[in-house]
Amino acid sequence: MHKLTIETFRHAEAVLREIILDTGLIYSKPFTLQTGNNIWFKPENMQLTGAYKIRGALYKVSTLSQKQRQRGLITASAGNHAQGLGFASQYYGANAVIVMPETTPLVKVNNTKAYGVQVVLAGNIYDDAYAHALKTAQEYGYEFVHPFNDPDIAAGQGTLAFEILRSLPETDVILVPVGGGGLIAGIATLAKILKPSVTVIGVEPSGAACMKMSLKEGKVTSLHKVETIADGVAVRTPGDKIFPYVQKYVDDIITIDDQKLVDVFLDLMESHKMIVENAGLLSVAALKYLDVKNKNVVALLSGGNMDVITISSLVQHGLRNRGRIFTFSVRLPDRPGELHRISGIIAQERGNIIELQHNQFVDINRNSDKGTELVVTLEAFGHEHKNTIMTALSQKGYDANIVS
Amino acid sequence: MHKLTIETFRHAEAVLREIILDTGLIYSKPFTLQTGNNIWFKPENMQLTGAYKIRGALYKVSTLSQKQRQRGLITASAGNHAQGLGFASQYYGANAVIVMPETTPLVKVNNTKAYGVQVVLAGNIYDDAYAHALKTAQEYGYEFVHPFNDPDIAAGQGTLAFEILRSLPETDVILVPVGGGGLIAGIATLAKILKPSVTVIGVEPSGAACMKMSLKEGKVTSLHKVETIADGVAVRTPGDKIFPYVQKYVDDIITIDDQKLVDVFLDLMESHKMIVENAGLLSVAALKYLDVKNKNVVALLSGGNMDVITISSLVQHGLRNRGRIFTFSVRLPDRPGELHRISGIIAQERGNIIELQHNQFVDINRNSDKGTELVVTLEAFGHEHKNTIMTALSQKGYDANIVS
Repeated sequence: MHKLTIETFRHAEAVLREIILDTGLIYSKPFTLQTGNNIWFKPENMQLTGAYKIRGALYKVSTLSQKQRQRGLITASAGNHAQGLGFASQYYGANAVIVMPETTPLVKVNNTKAYGVQVVLAGNIYDDAYAHALKTAQEYGYEFVHPFNDPDIAAGQGTLAFEILRSLPETDVILVPVGGGGLIAGIATLAKILKPSVTVIGVEPSGAACMKMSLKEGKVTSLHKVETIADGVAVRTPGDKIFPYVQKYVDDIITIDDQKLVDVFLDLMESHKMIVENAGLLSVAALKYLDVKNKNVVALLSGGNMDVITISSLVQHGLRNRGRIFTFSVRLPDRPGELHRISGIIAQERGNIIELQHNQFVDINRNSDKGTELVVTLEAFGHEHKNTIMTALSQKGYDANIVS
Repeated sequence: MHKLTIETFRHAEAVLREIILDTGLIYSKPFTLQTGNNIWFKPENMQLTGAYKIRGALYKVSTLSQKQRQRGLITASAGNHAQGLGFASQYYGANAVIVMPETTPLVKVNNTKAYGVQVVLAGNIYDDAYAHALKTAQEYGYEFVHPFNDPDIAAGQGTLAFEILRSLPETDVILVPVGGGGLIAGIATLAKILKPSVTVIGVEPSGAACMKMSLKEGKVTSLHKVETIADGVAVRTPGDKIFPYVQKYVDDIITIDDQKLVDVFLDLMESHKMIVENAGLLSVAALKYLDVKNKNVVALLSGGNMDVITISSLVQHGLRNRGRIFTFSVRLPDRPGELHRISGIIAQERGNIIELQHNQFVDINRNSDKGTELVVTLEAFGHEHKNTIMTALSQKGYDANIVS
């Protein structure tokens, strides 16, 4: 296992250069205007396998002997590290076993198997799968490839700092999503070697801020539980082997609430036509919490692997947050013409009906003024338009209520 | 108005360089594996304003005098040209009027107004808006900025060939979406000047292939009607001022059916984490119709401006095409326990219920074996899994039918 020296990073860079993409930097005019800093994105969502994890995995496997590769590698992961190690094992012709929790969606299992590695399902949660992988490693003499707690892995991830500072030597600040700390340990160490004046800031979800707590405590500390939609960084304990580098080189940690990620997801989709997974959105969400102006800021988009069904659901949530879709319910008398009247008001205000439920039997007295319920989902142009529609309904005497 | 000479292109490039992004090239490993050629994407969906149209508009406005800019510019467009001219007018401090059909969604109107230009709504369809813009131009002495039938516009779009051949001098084939022909006229002319051996192929929707027909006829020819979801290229008549360049420099035209675009949309989203609008997907869909192998092929992603609600709907369609979502209906006896039994079969086969409707009263005889209808929407892992679930239902005696 190497130390994180410039030689190690150069070695990692030389190994990776021929295999992976230099993902460049994307200048963001909209985020520059919004934040008052000059914003660039480092789009590792567009990296092979859809995430930066391939860097560490490739470098790690490159340092192993042919004998070790043949005997076998093992890890526990249901995410980007699984695909990264899958790719690396295929590339170097190594035998690899990936342990995933039994609850892992078949799509993820198949995506990983596609690299020709063996997938073993064990346990209900990640910790069980991890324990199983460790045990198997000891039993069969497999090399356990840790997703983050390994300086060789951190060295591979750290090569991102070469690309960032080559693309934009004037970089002032780098924002990095933080899970177990392997990525930020590598980036911060190399960035400070190459350009000591650069600031490196980690970003964690508020519900899984193990690094922030550990830095505060001055030692590796475990959270009792983690709760976040950013599953790529839902880690309870930072890696002890890379923690000293984080302590030494990382300038600050920003934490982000989950609900902010939904809006940022849509922002990136609309402004930059990119899909970024929740963990990868942390650095973008953090842009508005920087206390500097007119600086050159690079936000790392760490990955883009998100199931299309999840994308679809995030879009729906985001549209509701923005008042582009909303649902209201209203009680009507149960008599002919009522639907026609209310649909007329909606049409006049240019609301577009997406879904409509007409429920009879909601009142014990069918002849009451509120004998029927109408639940309407509309497409609108935003909160202002939504309010206009609701006001119009109210002015025509309807007691309509927003449901969601 | 300039001719399309190398000097004109160099001039356009010099004007644009300081303003817009060089969007680089993205190497596509998955499409390379799929097609047997080496595939790169030119991601103009990530250009400022989300499309290449800004290039032509900026160059055109740059060639106008201060007096012309002050007197006013006008165009008709509800799409990317509107935003391109909006951006260019704001940049050069020109007064501009954009005429859009009255049916244009408010979101598009507002996005264009955000550039500080005036938006006028006129007519029900594009042709009406176009006629209104021409009339207004004559009435007030405005400069009419055509979306494609103008060599200056084509010169701006053509600068893409500089970027492509600089990024990948070994380019063999360039695939370009075709609407009115301004984009491909510029790219083909410059590409052949810079590298005569390069092949430039246009791609049109089958339902709007006015260029293919015109090339066949040997003269500019109009379609009676156009019908395609690729609204960015839904053009009836190619531009006569740029047609000679297309005739001279374009090697071939490939046509693509609309339904192919839905699959390609999801492919790009999953493999490259990118949103590309329907017109921009044409060149990607055409990749599998090339009759060459082992060539270096660049497919131009011309734009990414797609409403998020449309994205959401495309994702749904794509998931159904792939068997990731499907809906079946089944008739059941109307008695307790039936739902429990059928949901048990679904659970055993690991189908995930997204939506369920339970309709009573579908049979006149409530006591028949088919007194109730169940309509179930499931998430599955693909067509194979979908078939497994349907077979399991059939084996347990249910006459289930796929609805969509």
